[in-house]
Amino acid sequence: MKLATLKNNSRDGTLVVVSRDLSRCVAVPHIAPTLQAALDDWDSSQPTLQAVYAELNAGKAADARPFDANSCHAPLPRAYQWADGSAYLNHVELVRRARHSQVPESFFSDPLMYQGGSDSFIGPRDPIIADSEDWGIDMEAEVTVVTDDVPTGISAADALEKIRLIMLVNDVSLRGLIPGELAKGFGFFQSKPASAFSPVAITPDELGNAWRDGKVHLPMQVDLNGQPFGRPNAGQDMTFHFGELIAHAARTRDLEAGTIIGSGTISNKQGGLNGSSIRNGGVGYCCIAEVRMYETIETGKPITPFMRFGDQVRIHMEDAHGHDIFGTIDQTVTRRSEA
Amino acid sequence: MKLATLKNNSRDGTLVVVSRDLSRCVAVPHIAPTLQAALDDWDSSQPTLQAVYAELNAGKAADARPFDANSCHAPLPRAYQWADGSAYLNHVELVRRARHSQVPESFFSDPLMYQGGSDSFIGPRDPIIADSEDWGIDMEAEVTVVTDDVPTGISAADALEKIRLIMLVNDVSLRGLIPGELAKGFGFFQSKPASAFSPVAITPDELGNAWRDGKVHLPMQVDLNGQPFGRPNAGQDMTFHFGELIAHAARTRDLEAGTIIGSGTISNKQGGLNGSSIRNGGVGYCCIAEVRMYETIETGKPITPFMRFGDQVRIHMEDAHGHDIFGTIDQTVTRRSEA
Repeated sequence: MKLATLKNNSRDGTLVVVSRDLSRCVAVPHIAPTLQAALDDWDSSQPTLQAVYAELNAGKAADARPFDANSCHAPLPRAYQWADGSAYLNHVELVRRARHSQVPESFFSDPLMYQGGSDSFIGPRDPIIADSEDWGIDMEAEVTVVTDDVPTGISAADALEKIRLIMLVNDVSLRGLIPGELAKGFGFFQSKPASAFSPVAITPDELGNAWRDGKVHLPMQVDLNGQPFGRPNAGQDMTFHFGELIAHAARTRDLEAGTIIGSGTISNKQGGLNGSSIRNGGVGYCCIAEVRMYETIETGKPITPFMRFGDQVRIHMEDAHGHDIFGTIDQTVTRRSEA
Repeated sequence: MKLATLKNNSRDGTLVVVSRDLSRCVAVPHIAPTLQAALDDWDSSQPTLQAVYAELNAGKAADARPFDANSCHAPLPRAYQWADGSAYLNHVELVRRARHSQVPESFFSDPLMYQGGSDSFIGPRDPIIADSEDWGIDMEAEVTVVTDDVPTGISAADALEKIRLIMLVNDVSLRGLIPGELAKGFGFFQSKPASAFSPVAITPDELGNAWRDGKVHLPMQVDLNGQPFGRPNAGQDMTFHFGELIAHAARTRDLEAGTIIGSGTISNKQGGLNGSSIRNGGVGYCCIAEVRMYETIETGKPITPFMRFGDQVRIHMEDAHGHDIFGTIDQTVTRRSEA
């Protein structure tokens, strides 16, 4: 099943069921006005939403209309929790190597995770707004899951059963603000502006065999200014699967339905700078910081600039037949005074 | 105006208007079913809620019933944002002195703030649940404000105008888990279990002249196992006022209505261990960690233990006439297997 939220000048938008091919959609106010409302009572809403989805795919839904990703808000325009892991330790290893340090052994058994702001997400086609290019504007292409209620102390295996939906996110990061914030010891805050999510949230069954072991085994496709920038496989080199990330988040407190858990920026192990870019036959990168770390490790300093005003990033994922699964995040960096 | 949320087996509870003396309340489903709904449209809901409040105080509200803080959930049982500052730098200075380091100069101009979990708050009389006393269970008594929508880049002065409600919070902290989490660099997560809020949220005008300069100029009253433990004045030694904390949170992204901003644990400057406790004539402490830091600085090691199963903490604030303003947070530490 595929679900989206259309902008309607309200805080939470309108929930729509979207056809598998992303061509049509239908509002379902009689089932749930918003995605959070559907998640609040998923056992009841899921079967009826699924029935609408079957009708829609069969061309039998009465009120179907064309689906336009440009009209989408984030599937959850505001959520009660956004907890983002950093499960691709290759990314962390590169960060550390670039500053001549090692990844602590504990990082391989205890996931990195930060609490993100979830009150004001933005739509998949909304601009990345910033005051200054000096903020070091970067994309981070990630997979996320949306959970049902999760009790404290759940096991990683049981946590996998609590996953209701999967989305993509562009977890925009302001690299210029990160060192100062991390030095203060309280984690990210200003360095993580509003995140944008894929137009569509899907149930895990939509991925077939590509959803297994708590991971999405498909390439994440990132394009920067129309050029292929990243194609790493989200199922590879993910040190902690989503069940483990959920269990980590729920160690000392319950998670409420609609909690979003992120994978962290996707990163596959590659030899080094030479050959890692897509142009040179590699799988590329899901954030600019990663290529800058290769550059730092091998040349002593970063070369590739972060995003500039006018730069465009597109993030999507395709099935085995080349069809877009979640719809495409497509954002342009925009100066606040011109937004 | 005073507002509370009664438990009703739903996720968001029932919004009630509470009389100034905390004796009676009345549900207002015709105005707003939940506090978040009222905040979503405050300009419209505030005048009608205020009218009910006037009737209730005058003894003229038709459906008034006794108000029982034991029936309360957190005023916002789940919120879209909980951003907690650490505005009482005396607390930070003690932390640093206990480990023989200094407070960086920048801490006096750039507030400390972490993103907290806001999806599953607990009521003022709910137990503090933990698996183990080894977690280092501690209270943190703080003042919080609830904002309206706040645009990115707002000034501290304008941010003060966005404050809609004031609450108290017990920001329970698991001291035993903090060092490991902070060492990872991503801030608090497991070390911050569910926070409990005061039974009642109030509009700033309820404080009269005690609300000025973006601070609450009243003593925070903390009692541990029936003994006075803390009485520091929340208006003293607060390096950043709430307008500055809100502006910090909104530097790179909008804040949505219902955002909760915390002051950090309240801490007044005192001479040292001798004389700082209430028994010895001081104003005491709003968390156990603080007295342990005095002990560490002066004796080389902490002496006072963190909370144990069965320990009780009460947190409240009184007006000039000794009347409880927000109702009282009253929690007992409980082993999960016995909860």
